[in-house]
Amino acid sequence: MRQNEKVVSRPRGRPPVRCDEDTRRLIVEAAREEFLANGFAGTCMNDVAQRAGVSTKTLYRLIPTKADLFISVISFRIERFMLDTSDDVVGGLDLAEALERILVAYGKLTLDAETIALSRLVIGESDRFPEIAAAFYESAIVRTCRAMQSWLARQSERGLLKLEDARAASSMLRGMMIMEPQRAVMLGQKPAPSAAEIADRAKKVAHLFLEGCRA
Amino acid sequence: MRQNEKVVSRPRGRPPVRCDEDTRRLIVEAAREEFLANGFAGTCMNDVAQRAGVSTKTLYRLIPTKADLFISVISFRIERFMLDTSDDVVGGLDLAEALERILVAYGKLTLDAETIALSRLVIGESDRFPEIAAAFYESAIVRTCRAMQSWLARQSERGLLKLEDARAASSMLRGMMIMEPQRAVMLGQKPAPSAAEIADRAKKVAHLFLEGCRA
Repeated sequence: MRQNEKVVSRPRGRPPVRCDEDTRRLIVEAAREEFLANGFAGTCMNDVAQRAGVSTKTLYRLIPTKADLFISVISFRIERFMLDTSDDVVGGLDLAEALERILVAYGKLTLDAETIALSRLVIGESDRFPEIAAAFYESAIVRTCRAMQSWLARQSERGLLKLEDARAASSMLRGMMIMEPQRAVMLGQKPAPSAAEIADRAKKVAHLFLEGCRA
Repeated sequence: MRQNEKVVSRPRGRPPVRCDEDTRRLIVEAAREEFLANGFAGTCMNDVAQRAGVSTKTLYRLIPTKADLFISVISFRIERFMLDTSDDVVGGLDLAEALERILVAYGKLTLDAETIALSRLVIGESDRFPEIAAAFYESAIVRTCRAMQSWLARQSERGLLKLEDARAASSMLRGMMIMEPQRAVMLGQKPAPSAAEIADRAKKVAHLFLEGCRA
């Protein structure tokens, strides 16, 4: 209590010991644990602040709503995917290798046990928390789909792919890669796939996507 | 109460007025409404019996558990899919037409607003009701995936497709067709797709699956 008061009475601006970026990281890590343990309904901002060891005032200043908190939790993973699939990484590879690399990154992002647990939360609680469902849809699904769509469109412009509709192609490619493995984990019927299983599926998906299967 | 007593005291065997098949249909219809309105946790066998106008004894005799009740609700839809994709229906079509027909049937089954609402229930409550998640996985997902896999394997045997792994191909094909449209509905971001949208996607998916997209 005394500690909280001290924090609250501190002048606005960058705290003397820890920068906002570090504080934000502590908060997001605490939020991740709270969401996974208690769901959305069961997670409250005060508990997150307490677990992170910050005042609620600091929490609300840095991350004002529960939806923002959730998006911050998944954003770290999304940023990793964006880096792993940037032109710096896949630009020099041939078409099939680049596609496989992108699919592996997408598989690592979406077939991870914690990501699946978070996705299940969003789906299960989307009636009660439509703002979180909307934020998840926009920040995770639409954003990664656009990144893949934009890569596909560039390959089409380079004459390497023939695609009438890069958006539909991106959506199909994503479904090929993750739907059934993700759902088996979400329903508790299989463990999350290993890195080797993700790599194997990425290879098969890339091949079928590029070549089709008509004899 | 008097009516219930009369039903309970009736001798075992086929009731004089309504056959078990008709009673089962009333129960399943009542269960569908209860599940959609109240979820699994909020649905109790007594309420289903009352809504169906049957005694709980009759309910437990015909459909003994809540998981069975749920599976009965979705089984009707699955049977429809099995009929729509049987060799009688698609056997005479050429490869692309048959595949499109199967994808349309799969889309109608899985992109229907009620099916999506039921799937969301299963996902959201799979922690608390693992037996329902397991029953859904086996009776809906594995069953329809096997049907599509078996069709793909037959086309491969006929020399029309080149597939090393018909199971993986079936799983990819299904993801291409429904993942992103289904998830947009599940998260409340889009309405369920129309019949025309399902047909259009089926056409694009069949084309990409058969021909690939390498230029």
